[in-house]
This record gives sequence, structure tokens and C-alpha cells, in this order.
Amino acid sequence: MRLRLTPTNTTFFDLLAGSAQQLVGGADLLSRLLAAEPADRKPLAAELRDAEHAADESTHEIMRRLNQTFVTPFDRHDIYGLASGLDDCMDHMEEAGDLVVLYQVGTLPNRVHKQVDVLRRCAEITAEAMPRLRSMKDLADYWVEINRLENEADKSYRKLLAEMFRGGMDPMDVLRLKDIVDALEAAADSFESVANLVETIALKES
Amino acid sequence: MRLRLTPTNTTFFDLLAGSAQQLVGGADLLSRLLAAEPADRKPLAAELRDAEHAADESTHEIMRRLNQTFVTPFDRHDIYGLASGLDDCMDHMEEAGDLVVLYQVGTLPNRVHKQVDVLRRCAEITAEAMPRLRSMKDLADYWVEINRLENEADKSYRKLLAEMFRGGMDPMDVLRLKDIVDALEAAADSFESVANLVETIALKES
Amino acid sequence: MRLRLTPTNTTFFDLLAGSAQQLVGGADLLSRLLAAEPADRKPLAAELRDAEHAADESTHEIMRRLNQTFVTPFDRHDIYGLASGLDDCMDHMEEAGDLVVLYQVGTLPNRVHKQVDVLRRCAEITAEAMPRLRSMKDLADYWVEINRLENEADKSYRKLLAEMFRGGMDPMDVLRLKDIVDALEAAADSFESVANLVETIALKES
Repeated sequence: MRLRLTPTNTTFFDLLAGSAQQLVGGADLLSRLLAAEPADRKPLAAELRDAEHAADESTHEIMRRLNQTFVTPFDRHDIYGLASGLDDCMDHMEEAGDLVVLYQVGTLPNRVHKQVDVLRRCAEITAEAMPRLRSMKDLADYWVEINRLENEADKSYRKLLAEMFRGGMDPMDVLRLKDIVDALEAAADSFESVANLVETIALKES
Repeated sequence: MRLRLTPTNTTFFDLLAGSAQQLVGGADLLSRLLAAEPADRKPLAAELRDAEHAADESTHEIMRRLNQTFVTPFDRHDIYGLASGLDDCMDHMEEAGDLVVLYQVGTLPNRVHKQVDVLRRCAEITAEAMPRLRSMKDLADYWVEINRLENEADKSYRKLLAEMFRGGMDPMDVLRLKDIVDALEAAADSFESVANLVETIALKES
Repeated sequence: MRLRLTPTNTTFFDLLAGSAQQLVGGADLLSRLLAAEPADRKPLAAELRDAEHAADESTHEIMRRLNQTFVTPFDRHDIYGLASGLDDCMDHMEEAGDLVVLYQVGTLPNRVHKQVDVLRRCAEITAEAMPRLRSMKDLADYWVEINRLENEADKSYRKLLAEMFRGGMDPMDVLRLKDIVDALEAAADSFESVANLVETIALKES
């Protein structure tokens, strides 16, 4: 195992920012997939799967770099946690998109589009925040906003559940839709986990 | 980040005991919610949500304290694990109560009340055990009893599943009930995780 | 707490190999359970539950040994992670077998048998790989093959989901089958997690 003692051009901050930027692309693909006609969704799902594989590669690159670097800019367990958390966000978004195609869902309720809009916003501000880990400055706005967005996602999720279980909906449609909105809710929770970890890191490193 | 070198009045033991005490209140609210007439459940669910927010605050306080304390009474990763585990117990209990209202469930099977009685007992003995972390003494009875209680919860859960899938029950009712009993089972598992961690800590620190 | 400074006859490598070997037995039991007539499944499920308890004991033995050993052959957090990961594999396999009996499922689709064949293969190569942790040599074939097997499992899983939701299947049957294939998919994911951790360990220790 070669030890890197001299910094390379690509730093952990760059790698984490890169992973977060991939989430912006992923959330955008997911949004377009949901809005597309069912017949047009398959290629978008394939793109989303590719995006998830690329995100996986980024995560592995960070892990490899962690194993080869003796001195890290902040606690290596936290770098690992961030990489892992960002990876979870992508996994859940890809899962949601995959199920929409697999389950041959038709039109989705408006609230589902709202859930995905929240995820797009989460991805944007996460990508904007990652570079600020260098200075550990001006991060509070980020985690405060993520917490607000996650509350919004949670409200949409709960309203969707209430609608689904009000009665009158075919059980198979409830099953399909529930798996999808569960995956979207899990994605929102993952964005919040990343923000909580950033808050912890900022507190420790201040 | 201000380092606290002199101990403050509220110790980690006090904070963990406080978190565990909140679980007693939460389990009690959950029990009353399940026993209430459907029309009377909403305010109890709101109280349970407040209890979950308060538990969240307690968990955050422990995390903040961990980041500011140089010397901890035992392994800081274990203090983190306990705080996190106690938080999971409350999250699952609140989720169960929330779904009972969201899904507009009517009367619940007796076995569900039995699951919640087990959770109340788990919360009580967990709250009693936390202060004994100071001395690391007389903790074996606690984790042995939690393991016994979790086995009881597991039996109730499996019998409920068998009943639900025996046939004759409306699929929508099965879906509603399964989500609720899954959350209660997850709460029981979380209490067991906390007890397992206490056992590990006691072994390490003895 | 007695510190063991002199190595005992049973090393961590032996213990991890033992845990992995238990997975071979568990996967075999699961395979026979699925293939059996419904009337003959109960005793096999009981054997599988015993296998899970034995695996639990093995995991606890590794944790106890970790708490008593000052110098470990590789990072103790990774030994913990491996033990924990192997335990997850058994838990998910036992859960799948338990649900097949609890839900009184009849004949299972061929693809479910295929999922279990993949798990049997995962267990075999995991058991073969564990002893090679001593030398950290010739492990790449193992994790590469596990990744290939997990992709196979994933394909079977997704095809099963597509079939279940195509339409025409009774919602209760979908519910039963989904829980079972979810548990089998979780088992495959757990085998992959173990392999990913072995890859990380091999990279660190090389």
C-alpha cells in the first residue's frame, strides 16, 4: 500500500463535492423519469442506473483514498460517513426510479412529484455545501435548510400514506405506490443524515 | 470549541438516564393511544410526536457534550451508541403511534396491546438500569430480562403475522396492521440492541 | 477482565471461518426447506432457527474475544464488522425460511429457488475465503465472484418483482412472496457487504 504523504491535486473535499454533484444529476434524472410518459421511462431508468454505478465508483475512490492517506483533513471516520451517506442518497433515488419502471406505474400523484422536487433541492444545496467543508464556515444555513426540506418531504410522505389508505384504492396500486414513496422518503432521510453529520463535523472542527 | 475539563453537574450518566426516562413516557403515551377510541387518538399522537422531538433534543445534547468533552467516563463510541440506540427506540414507538392515526385503524388485536406492554416494561427497566452504568454493577439482570422480553415481543409479532396471513382478512387491513406491528417489533429490537451494547460496555469496563 | 496476551489455540481466523461455515449449513437448510412439501417444512424451519441461534453464539464469542484481546491480527473494528456481517447473512436467511412456514406458502416460483442457489454459492465461497485472511492472499477472486453472484441475485429479485406486479396475482400472495424475496435479497446484499469489507481489509493490510 503506497502511502501518500504529499497532497495530490484531487483532495477529499474535491471527491466529496464530486459525489454530491452526482446527486444533482441523479435527482434531475429521477424527476424527468417521473414526469415522462410510461413508454419513455426505460431509457431514463437506465441512465439513472448508470448514475448510481458512477456514484458507487466515487464512493469506492474515497474509500481507497482513505486507506492510502495517513493524515486526513478531518476525522477519517467522518469522511467515511459522508461518503457512505451520499451513496445512500443515490441508492434510494435509483431504487425509486427503478421501481416506477419495474412496477409499470402510470401517472403518479402530485405529491410524489413534490417529494422529488424536495430531493432536487436537497441535492443542490448539498453540492453547494461540500466545498465549504474546507473552511468549516457558513455551513449552518445548509443543515438548517436540509432539516426544513426533510420536514416538507415528511409531510408529503405522510399525506400520501393517508390518501393511499383512505380507502377506494386497489391494494396492488397501494403496494406499488408505497414502495416508491418509501424509497423517496428514505432518500430524504439520507440527505438529512448527511447534513447532521456535517453539523457534527463542523462542531468538532471549530 | 470550548473544552470542558472540569465536570459539570449534568453527567453523561444523567443524560443517558434522562433519555431512557423519556422512553417510559413515550411507551405510556403509545399504550394510551392504542387503547383510546379512534376519535380520541389525534391529541395523543401529537403528544407522542412532542415526546419524540424532546428525545431527539436529548440525543443531540449528548452528541454535543461528546464533542466538547476530552475525557469520557467510558468509550465515547459506546456513549454515542447508547444515545443513538435509545433514540431508535423512541423513533419506532412514535412511528407506530403515528401510523395508527394516519391509517385510521379501528380496534387493534389483543396481541398488539401485548407488544406495547412489552415495550413499556422494556422502557422501565432500561430507565432503571442507566444510572447503574456509573458502577457497572448489577447490570446482568437488566440485559437478561430485556432478552427475555424481546423473545416475548417476537413471539407476539410472529403470531400476529400468522393470523394476518391465515386468510380472510382484507388486504388493505393487512397492509395497515403489518406496518404497525413491524414498527413495534423494530422498537423491541432497538431495546435489545441497547441492552446488548450495555452488556458489551460492562464486559469491557469490568 | 482477563487479558489474553498469549495466543490461544482458537484464533480469530478460526472463529470467523467457523461463522462462515455455519452459513453453508444455513443456506443448505433453507434450500431444503423451500424444496420440501409444505407439510414437511416445520422441522426444517426449527433446524434453521437452531442454526441461527448457533450463529448468534459464534458472533457473541468473537465479540467476547475482541473485548479480552489486547493485540488483534488486524483492525478490531474490521473483525467486529466481519462477525456482524456474517451474522446478518444468517439472520436474513432464517427470516426467509421462517416466513415461508409462517405464511403457509405453497409452491414457490423457480426464481426463488434460484435466489437460494445463489446464497448457497455465496456461503460456500465465503467459508473458503475466511481462512485466507491469515495471509491476505488470493482474496480478490472471492470478492469479485461475490459481486457477480449478488448481481445475479439482484436480477432474479427484480424479475420476481416484475412478475408479482404484472397483475393477476392475489394481493395477499404478493404480500407473502414479497416479504420472502425481500429477505433473500437482503441476505445476498449481506454477503456482498462481507465481501466489500474483506476487500477493504485486504487493501489496508497489504
